[in-house]
Amino acid sequence: MQLSNAERAEVLIHALPYIQQYYNKIIVVKYGGNAMINDELRRDVMGDIVLLSLIGIKVVLVHGGGPEITDMLKKTGKKSEFVNGLRVTDAETVDIAQMVLAGKINKSLINLIQSTGGRAIGLCGLDGGMITARQLDPALGFVGEITEVNTEPITDLLEKGYIPVISTIGRDDEGNVYNINADTAAARIAGKLRAESLITMTDIAGILRDRDDPASLISKMNVSDAPQLMREGVISGGMIPKVECCIEAIRRGVGKVFIIDGRIPHAILIETLTDEGIGTMLV
Amino acid sequence: MQLSNAERAEVLIHALPYIQQYYNKIIVVKYGGNAMINDELRRDVMGDIVLLSLIGIKVVLVHGGGPEITDMLKKTGKKSEFVNGLRVTDAETVDIAQMVLAGKINKSLINLIQSTGGRAIGLCGLDGGMITARQLDPALGFVGEITEVNTEPITDLLEKGYIPVISTIGRDDEGNVYNINADTAAARIAGKLRAESLITMTDIAGILRDRDDPASLISKMNVSDAPQLMREGVISGGMIPKVECCIEAIRRGVGKVFIIDGRIPHAILIETLTDEGIGTMLV
Amino acid sequence: MQLSNAERAEVLIHALPYIQQYYNKIIVVKYGGNAMINDELRRDVMGDIVLLSLIGIKVVLVHGGGPEITDMLKKTGKKSEFVNGLRVTDAETVDIAQMVLAGKINKSLINLIQSTGGRAIGLCGLDGGMITARQLDPALGFVGEITEVNTEPITDLLEKGYIPVISTIGRDDEGNVYNINADTAAARIAGKLRAESLITMTDIAGILRDRDDPASLISKMNVSDAPQLMREGVISGGMIPKVECCIEAIRRGVGKVFIIDGRIPHAILIETLTDEGIGTMLV
Amino acid sequence: MQLSNAERAEVLIHALPYIQQYYNKIIVVKYGGNAMINDELRRDVMGDIVLLSLIGIKVVLVHGGGPEITDMLKKTGKKSEFVNGLRVTDAETVDIAQMVLAGKINKSLINLIQSTGGRAIGLCGLDGGMITARQLDPALGFVGEITEVNTEPITDLLEKGYIPVISTIGRDDEGNVYNINADTAAARIAGKLRAESLITMTDIAGILRDRDDPASLISKMNVSDAPQLMREGVISGGMIPKVECCIEAIRRGVGKVFIIDGRIPHAILIETLTDEGIGTMLV
Amino acid sequence: MQLSNAERAEVLIHALPYIQQYYNKIIVVKYGGNAMINDELRRDVMGDIVLLSLIGIKVVLVHGGGPEITDMLKKTGKKSEFVNGLRVTDAETVDIAQMVLAGKINKSLINLIQSTGGRAIGLCGLDGGMITARQLDPALGFVGEITEVNTEPITDLLEKGYIPVISTIGRDDEGNVYNINADTAAARIAGKLRAESLITMTDIAGILRDRDDPASLISKMNVSDAPQLMREGVISGGMIPKVECCIEAIRRGVGKVFIIDGRIPHAILIETLTDEGIGTMLV
Amino acid sequence: MQLSNAERAEVLIHALPYIQQYYNKIIVVKYGGNAMINDELRRDVMGDIVLLSLIGIKVVLVHGGGPEITDMLKKTGKKSEFVNGLRVTDAETVDIAQMVLAGKINKSLINLIQSTGGRAIGLCGLDGGMITARQLDPALGFVGEITEVNTEPITDLLEKGYIPVISTIGRDDEGNVYNINADTAAARIAGKLRAESLITMTDIAGILRDRDDPASLISKMNVSDAPQLMREGVISGGMIPKVECCIEAIRRGVGKVFIIDGRIPHAILIETLTDEGIGTMLV
Repeated sequence: MQLSNAERAEVLIHALPYIQQYYNKIIVVKYGGNAMINDELRRDVMGDIVLLSLIGIKVVLVHGGGPEITDMLKKTGKKSEFVNGLRVTDAETVDIAQMVLAGKINKSLINLIQSTGGRAIGLCGLDGGMITARQLDPALGFVGEITEVNTEPITDLLEKGYIPVISTIGRDDEGNVYNINADTAAARIAGKLRAESLITMTDIAGILRDRDDPASLISKMNVSDAPQLMREGVISGGMIPKVECCIEAIRRGVGKVFIIDGRIPHAILIETLTDEGIGTMLV
Repeated sequence: MQLSNAERAEVLIHALPYIQQYYNKIIVVKYGGNAMINDELRRDVMGDIVLLSLIGIKVVLVHGGGPEITDMLKKTGKKSEFVNGLRVTDAETVDIAQMVLAGKINKSLINLIQSTGGRAIGLCGLDGGMITARQLDPALGFVGEITEVNTEPITDLLEKGYIPVISTIGRDDEGNVYNINADTAAARIAGKLRAESLITMTDIAGILRDRDDPASLISKMNVSDAPQLMREGVISGGMIPKVECCIEAIRRGVGKVFIIDGRIPHAILIETLTDEGIGTMLV
Repeated sequence: MQLSNAERAEVLIHALPYIQQYYNKIIVVKYGGNAMINDELRRDVMGDIVLLSLIGIKVVLVHGGGPEITDMLKKTGKKSEFVNGLRVTDAETVDIAQMVLAGKINKSLINLIQSTGGRAIGLCGLDGGMITARQLDPALGFVGEITEVNTEPITDLLEKGYIPVISTIGRDDEGNVYNINADTAAARIAGKLRAESLITMTDIAGILRDRDDPASLISKMNVSDAPQLMREGVISGGMIPKVECCIEAIRRGVGKVFIIDGRIPHAILIETLTDEGIGTMLV
Repeated sequence: MQLSNAERAEVLIHALPYIQQYYNKIIVVKYGGNAMINDELRRDVMGDIVLLSLIGIKVVLVHGGGPEITDMLKKTGKKSEFVNGLRVTDAETVDIAQMVLAGKINKSLINLIQSTGGRAIGLCGLDGGMITARQLDPALGFVGEITEVNTEPITDLLEKGYIPVISTIGRDDEGNVYNINADTAAARIAGKLRAESLITMTDIAGILRDRDDPASLISKMNVSDAPQLMREGVISGGMIPKVECCIEAIRRGVGKVFIIDGRIPHAILIETLTDEGIGTMLV
Repeated sequence: MQLSNAERAEVLIHALPYIQQYYNKIIVVKYGGNAMINDELRRDVMGDIVLLSLIGIKVVLVHGGGPEITDMLKKTGKKSEFVNGLRVTDAETVDIAQMVLAGKINKSLINLIQSTGGRAIGLCGLDGGMITARQLDPALGFVGEITEVNTEPITDLLEKGYIPVISTIGRDDEGNVYNINADTAAARIAGKLRAESLITMTDIAGILRDRDDPASLISKMNVSDAPQLMREGVISGGMIPKVECCIEAIRRGVGKVFIIDGRIPHAILIETLTDEGIGTMLV
Repeated sequence: MQLSNAERAEVLIHALPYIQQYYNKIIVVKYGGNAMINDELRRDVMGDIVLLSLIGIKVVLVHGGGPEITDMLKKTGKKSEFVNGLRVTDAETVDIAQMVLAGKINKSLINLIQSTGGRAIGLCGLDGGMITARQLDPALGFVGEITEVNTEPITDLLEKGYIPVISTIGRDDEGNVYNINADTAAARIAGKLRAESLITMTDIAGILRDRDDPASLISKMNVSDAPQLMREGVISGGMIPKVECCIEAIRRGVGKVFIIDGRIPHAILIETLTDEGIGTMLV
């Protein structure tokens, strides 16, 4: 793209009303999937987040990490059991999950943000007692569901000017550690923070009426339409729990929820600072 | 200009290092001439300033207003005397100057900034005792030179989140009011504020080696080269006092001083948030 | 008056309970008419205000300026149309009104306060989006009625220790500027600030039962008595809208409202710091 | 004195420059002698102090109490020994001194200030470890000289808006209690606080060249003139240690020191808020 | 007691949950009787209070002083009248009570706290207008009952890190001074402060079912059981008003009230930082 | 140990002077070795730290983790190369080190502190750009030496009331990650924080003159004696770099440095809150 600086200035000035709309508000970004694995995309996403943070938006980053946990389990020769197709998370597995999430992925995101000129501190749900959880299902072991979110560590870091980067590990009062689904955690955190918006980055183009036709994107969807779309199979498979998390977030007070395509470079900037949404907005 | 939103995002992300460089720093903009008279340009300039202010830069706007003062003198039938080609500013004239600067131009800029979503408060040198002055030359009447600048009213407004818009009227301890040259005042204010940069908007393309060749623009000029350039006539006429003010600003501690072409739309944004300077930078 | 210093101390100590009563409270002073035109009275009023401000009272000064606007219209040769005896305020007229109020009168009051050792900053209704207005009557042009008062710029200045001096110009969301009646604006501002008192300075002795007998002054008047006094003609002419503004102020939460005679030197001090009211108090 | 309210206002406005001069500065008042014993004078002095405090001056009151200590010693039948004409302060005596100063005089001053509408808290040198002392002379028992003043308790109270009222009792690190000369303590406290002025109230008219001629008052005295005046006997007897304390205060950084006649009603107000000093000013 | 340092550490670590429970909470200690007269016990109690204060508990100390007032009355030869067995408090008596409480006992406690490394400031009910009172019974003279407690002086001192030590003297709006029962005052102050607990130190072992059998201690008592226990004579004599004060404190919002045996060394520490209560807890 | 509560109180009160000495000061604890691997000791150490933090001491915990890194390398089948007996840290190794330190050990310490009622947040040197490092030796790969410590993230967390728990991973400006020796990092961090003390926990009894005789413990050692003791072989092997770090800490401004035996339960409490040091103190 060859642009004169005049054109560049033109673009910046067009972002003004969008900046004003989010000024001093909280945006929670749920980050995972391919957008996280691809090095260049990851660099782009961190750049977007640093930019939003610099122009006065309070960004909270919640990340997942399924594939990297699987890799590490393989490397350590750990065999997983499955119950109804779901992996059983025994003590050793949750230990590795915690290590990969809070020690590897989280810190590599921190490293990227710092390299881009931002200021970030990593948190997992154990830090400052942020996420309290309980066992979801005894058959699944240390898979947790959230019983309470304490956002004080998050707001303390925001107040001091840091971008909080969150791994979704939780603990119960006995000190047991649980792996928590990152979509659910992001929704709960966004709700408790009364975030202006929750942006969920996925590996698909948003919700498509016809899976094979990108032009059939549903760009705005009312929460009340979800059940019908699920019945019709438009929302199906792995998208169902994602959409349910989004609905939960809205129910808990988040202003707007976006499911966007993380494979598009600077998808977050396009969504927040231009006039065209990409992906699907739930209201 | 037809740009995809991806391209727009690309532009925004390129502004990141420039935003970081000015983050939480003070920029003083001296605003006058045609850029102020042309309605569309004026709207652009105020937009630029609101944008800079939103992304965490502390902008202080100092404006002139010669032509509008002349208009009002004409309207009121006031005849001006001249000494050595300079207009004598008698009591009635300084009264009108004050009224036009602080009551008309200043407030119309405030109005535009508020309409663009910014927050601005107007100050003249009388407010909070900001500018103390004395008579420059008895033959010229109430034309003043600055003896002291009190930046407290400016920093108080910046701290409360307002963009200070300043009319360059001053007073002495007896309460006499003086008209002050806006370039000089901007330089003094920028110096006292230890501003990161002073941007002087003019009606020319910057300092040109050959007046008729825009390509001969001197984009970076060392303060020590000024005398030579004046002797050569490269800097001449009305540009001489402007350059002297710029040099004064640097001497008083301003980081960088820019003379930019106010007729170019979004000249301020181009200068601060892109990689190419326009006009001449003095260091 | 020849007083020993002992007698002077005696006077000061008698002011103690009055100072205590207003300590840290807000007093809005509506200032206009002859008290504003006469140089010596103006100096006195500003002295009173600086004194009140120094002894811990938060003073907000709202000024009018009808006669000076008329003068300037004359000077510029502007002919005014009249509808039902009311001057039509076209674009040029409101421009001149703004210029005279915010650029001349306001700044000359600031100048006087600074000369007396006070600290003041001038505001008009455009600054910080303080007064939002709409057209009162299409036939009258840019005469506005207030739709909303944002007192943040006022309280921001009070907090920083300045005396806010206010010109009653307003704007609508399109940026149109309106001239606003100063009595109304003072009442609305005092109400929104929950001021302890509103002092309206006029050119008469207060409300007199018998216009020709100063001894017939009604020193305390209940709001509920106003309709009867209007029917009887005791309150008549220009006093009617003034009294209506005062009633509005009380209805909006101002503690006490005073209509005092601005022609009496130090009328404000006498009213606030001695045991005898002058003029009429509405409760 | 029969004054119109206009005249009263006139007096108030004349105090303006004096108020400005002391605004937000610290004045230490050393209070003792007859001005403290006479009920009406005491009420006057407390009124003066409340007034000064209300108009933004930070007043610190240091009191003595010799005569009342003597009374209590008599009442309890305690016989005093004398060494070279100085009373020996044994354990029982210092106990009674502490009780009378901190429990009786101090609290009765607090009571008066509160009744006049001020806010005061009493301190003795033990509170917050304010005054550390050591034995002055073994022959005199528990008479102390100050080794260190900790002004934190004073500034903490000033910051919270209280008038600190101080009894000059001190302690050493072993917890022994000493009676401290109030003039000395006031000088040391004023010095450590970098007070604007120290006002010492006495029972005489100031320093007189001719003891019998009030007209011979030395209204301004340079510190360097003191030795000569002592040699000449102009400063003699009980005035010598008082003057030495004053000199000490100036040496430790107090701006101005006044020795004033506490028998004159409102002497403090006259000294601080009018144009005529009473008593002697040391510079 | 011969303990290794390992055992000492063990003890400290056992206090952890108790420290956590009281962290940043307010405890009001009512202190009087023999625990105050015995020098060693007094030193112990002050040590306990400094320790509690250092580990983050906000301690407020309210003291009595009956026996020392009686001593001083004797010393000064003051004869007391009695009405129904109660001492009549005439002007001279209340003067001595004030002097002994605020000038002697209070300051000696301050002295001890400072010597133990704490930071304390003494207050009586006159300071900062803390206790407003009225005459309880004309026949008893200056014995007061509390009409209002202003806890601002207490919270101001707590905020600045001081331990407030309070003598229970009060005043009415005319400036009359009253002696106030210390148990009642402590209950009222604790209630207004919403204290976590009120600890009343007495000379007995707590409430005993059988006065002669320490083993019959009622360690926890419900407020609703009090009337029955009074009827049975278990609570009798001087204990009745003490228990009534405790009930009043609970009614006014104090969490827990303890009546403990002040003769036991470190009774306060044992009560607050170990697992065994001593004395009687009212809930 | 059977202790009465009276004896427990006695112990607590004896800790008072030690608490006072460290009040509001910073203590850096370097934690590693067996004290970290043994579950019960680990629980004890975290208890000690929570207690210190509750009683007003600012504790910063720096941990190591060599053995657990070795375990994980084994588990993942990673073979290590050695150069001169030192393990070469290739990219994969530093990745695992980061994961184990910041994701496993750090978070398990956080978990324990939270379970004990403390509030902790984990940091590694990447968070907030805390530790900047460079390659120590190309032959060793990603083993780093510290070039700069930014303590802002630490003091930000302390200010918000958290116990910072630190993994000693660093980064350079290109974003390369380095494993940093924990002893060195603790010394540098303590120095930059101007800590009151640095406590290094080891697996030995301190510095012994005769390795086989615990009674030969050198309880206090002057920094200047170190070279001689090294020559004599009293300080040898792994103790040499530890002692060098301690000396570095003192050189950089830490008050006192302790090498204590982490195998003794509550060694930290014994060292800080009792009269007997354990281990060796360097001054």
